[in-house]
Amino acid sequence: MVDIASRVWNHKWKIDPIVRSLIDTDFYKLLMCQSVFRNKPETQVTFSLINRSKHIPLADLIDEGELREQLDHIRSLSLSRGESTWLRGNTFYGKRQMFRPDFMEWFEGLRLPSYYLERKGDQYELTFEGTWPEVMLWEIPALAVLMELRGRAVLGKMGKFELQILYARGMTRVWEKIEELRKIPGLSIADFGTRRRHSFLWQDWCVQAMQEGLGNAFTGTSNCKIAMSREVEAIGTNAHELPMVYAALAKDDAALAQAPYDVLQDWHEEHEGNLRIILPDTYGTKGFLDNAPDWLAGWTGIRIDSGDPATAAQIAIDWWKSRGEDPSSKRIIFSDGLDVAKIKELHTQFADKATVSFGWGTLLTNDFRNLVPDDALAPFSLVCKAVSANGKPTVKLSDNPNKAMGPQSEIDRYKRVFQVGEQDTQKVIV
Amino acid sequence: MVDIASRVWNHKWKIDPIVRSLIDTDFYKLLMCQSVFRNKPETQVTFSLINRSKHIPLADLIDEGELREQLDHIRSLSLSRGESTWLRGNTFYGKRQMFRPDFMEWFEGLRLPSYYLERKGDQYELTFEGTWPEVMLWEIPALAVLMELRGRAVLGKMGKFELQILYARGMTRVWEKIEELRKIPGLSIADFGTRRRHSFLWQDWCVQAMQEGLGNAFTGTSNCKIAMSREVEAIGTNAHELPMVYAALAKDDAALAQAPYDVLQDWHEEHEGNLRIILPDTYGTKGFLDNAPDWLAGWTGIRIDSGDPATAAQIAIDWWKSRGEDPSSKRIIFSDGLDVAKIKELHTQFADKATVSFGWGTLLTNDFRNLVPDDALAPFSLVCKAVSANGKPTVKLSDNPNKAMGPQSEIDRYKRVFQVGEQDTQKVIV
Repeated sequence: MVDIASRVWNHKWKIDPIVRSLIDTDFYKLLMCQSVFRNKPETQVTFSLINRSKHIPLADLIDEGELREQLDHIRSLSLSRGESTWLRGNTFYGKRQMFRPDFMEWFEGLRLPSYYLERKGDQYELTFEGTWPEVMLWEIPALAVLMELRGRAVLGKMGKFELQILYARGMTRVWEKIEELRKIPGLSIADFGTRRRHSFLWQDWCVQAMQEGLGNAFTGTSNCKIAMSREVEAIGTNAHELPMVYAALAKDDAALAQAPYDVLQDWHEEHEGNLRIILPDTYGTKGFLDNAPDWLAGWTGIRIDSGDPATAAQIAIDWWKSRGEDPSSKRIIFSDGLDVAKIKELHTQFADKATVSFGWGTLLTNDFRNLVPDDALAPFSLVCKAVSANGKPTVKLSDNPNKAMGPQSEIDRYKRVFQVGEQDTQKVIV
Repeated sequence: MVDIASRVWNHKWKIDPIVRSLIDTDFYKLLMCQSVFRNKPETQVTFSLINRSKHIPLADLIDEGELREQLDHIRSLSLSRGESTWLRGNTFYGKRQMFRPDFMEWFEGLRLPSYYLERKGDQYELTFEGTWPEVMLWEIPALAVLMELRGRAVLGKMGKFELQILYARGMTRVWEKIEELRKIPGLSIADFGTRRRHSFLWQDWCVQAMQEGLGNAFTGTSNCKIAMSREVEAIGTNAHELPMVYAALAKDDAALAQAPYDVLQDWHEEHEGNLRIILPDTYGTKGFLDNAPDWLAGWTGIRIDSGDPATAAQIAIDWWKSRGEDPSSKRIIFSDGLDVAKIKELHTQFADKATVSFGWGTLLTNDFRNLVPDDALAPFSLVCKAVSANGKPTVKLSDNPNKAMGPQSEIDRYKRVFQVGEQDTQKVIV
């Protein structure tokens, strides 16, 4: 039987919305948003889309009108009653009422602020300005929209069976990765792939495949909407935007040197246990750890997000030892450019030295490499970052110069303040 | 929206029927049935299931009750009005009214006769007895039911995502074959895979994939139901059961030697053009052609169904030449154990010598080899053959001793009468 009502209803859609919920976003965004809402609610920030893969001419591939429709649709979204109930009532990292009533009330009333979009050559300039807690929530949906519209441009030209085979191949590829991962004893892995996913439905499929294929080794997803609907853990802690904005707000070099620790001081007051995860690489891991206060060594673990991961993990282990901590009681979360071989390698190398876990991103939720002509569905490196705070530019150094951003004079200043010397350059895959 | 009525209706099904239409069968069965209905309507025959793959313990894998339910369901089927209209109104091989009114009237009233089923060790004995035109229509649905129930026994133990990946892998495999075939200029290929298909839905998918992937190189399907619903040509001519039964009915050795030609004489009177395809191997291709009457050399082509196909094709070409015919105006249809490599090889070898086409069977519609543990979904060699006619046993020799059947004394007699000498043995794959 054809469900006539459904078909008629479907024909009424003006667009096929890519993002359909304000919680179709990364969990750490909400945690950070609450922290910002409490500590820096009035900070004015600008977030900007940055396509690191200049060879992908986004403005040629994506129609500006369609892009505006998708962004406008996101501005029409508000938290649904069920979503709000889930955020208020769910247990996150074993804790009830993770989100405070004042934050929830604010979030329930939120609509995302306006955006600025302009074509510049074969790229788009897309920026968001306003107060930090509002603007920061644009990052993930904006990335998801750009990634998926670029995919749709390719998919729209394919035949019905070509499409079916494309997804058959994609699914088989994910499943074969899962079959490999299943062989790793004691694996602990989560989905971190929202921002550069192929599409929402695809990410949702990947999460379900991980559930069936990995069982308890699959610890959850960073995507709140999927965590809610699939009843798995929402995973994530904090990200570079916190130290970047805190640093930009610093009044002088001394305050700048202190800014990354101020971030974690604020975090320390709010969170405990598995949410106390250090992200050390914003201005160089080595210097950050060497100069860190002792209380930070008491945190639960560290997230490795740039540079050579094994090197960074060893630096962390040595640092814990130097501060009298037992590394085997610490958690190391790898989250940069992971795929199966790298996961295996890092697990083998560190599983008996610490509690190792993995946040698997783009190559879980968007590995469509070599599946269509000209590799037109291969993932690429798109980010959406805070580029200024209260009128001052932000800077990121990271442990990989290819991921650095900010005005060169400020980069030089930050390198001096944070005593960052020579860095190894690593190719940014995704 | 959930279509509640559909879900409730689906829950009312007692079984999920494997065969849902009397024309979910091979087209040549209907052509032969009409011929038998005209020429030998009262012949009493017995058809019997023969599992050439003894290592597949069908009775252990398939529940007898479920098998009976499926067979009983087939006995409840009758030609629908639309199916009858299609058979009466469609153009087959360019001809209108292929099926005569008296045959259609009989077919419209037909229900399949009873069956005899008994477990024997780890196999089933499944036989059908009655008049030839009725009993012969059991062959294809009986095979399809056994093949699919054996598959369901395996599929029933798999997880949801395991199943999805299984089909993703199967589809990708078929599509990769299609991509290879697309490279062959002037290819002409049809689906002959009904009898040993994985399932109806799978065969239907394969046909649609061939349509999209091969365009005009895909000439149609042997399956009438799918030809009707997908609006493609129904393909097929005649098969071994005609000479086998005619031969069994022969009164003496002289009549036996003549029997295969009697079959084609009857066919000659009924059909012309592309339906005049010789199937020469029932009692040895070489002897059959050497002793054939001259009018047979005027037929449109030949179908190669056993033995080494290149050898048999060359024998046919030499025979045409010896009878003053131009082989380049003749059609050679390959239909035995084909897969892409063999298709390519035969096409390369014979495309400039004759009009070459392919009837692709089991390895199109049931190539699930190596996709599950213990290769439990690999196709196997199951046939359903006329084993006796008016109380006398039938015999098949073919060009491959591994495909021979009948009592040994009769095989010896047939070999003498048809002057069959040494034969090369070929492994029966499917």
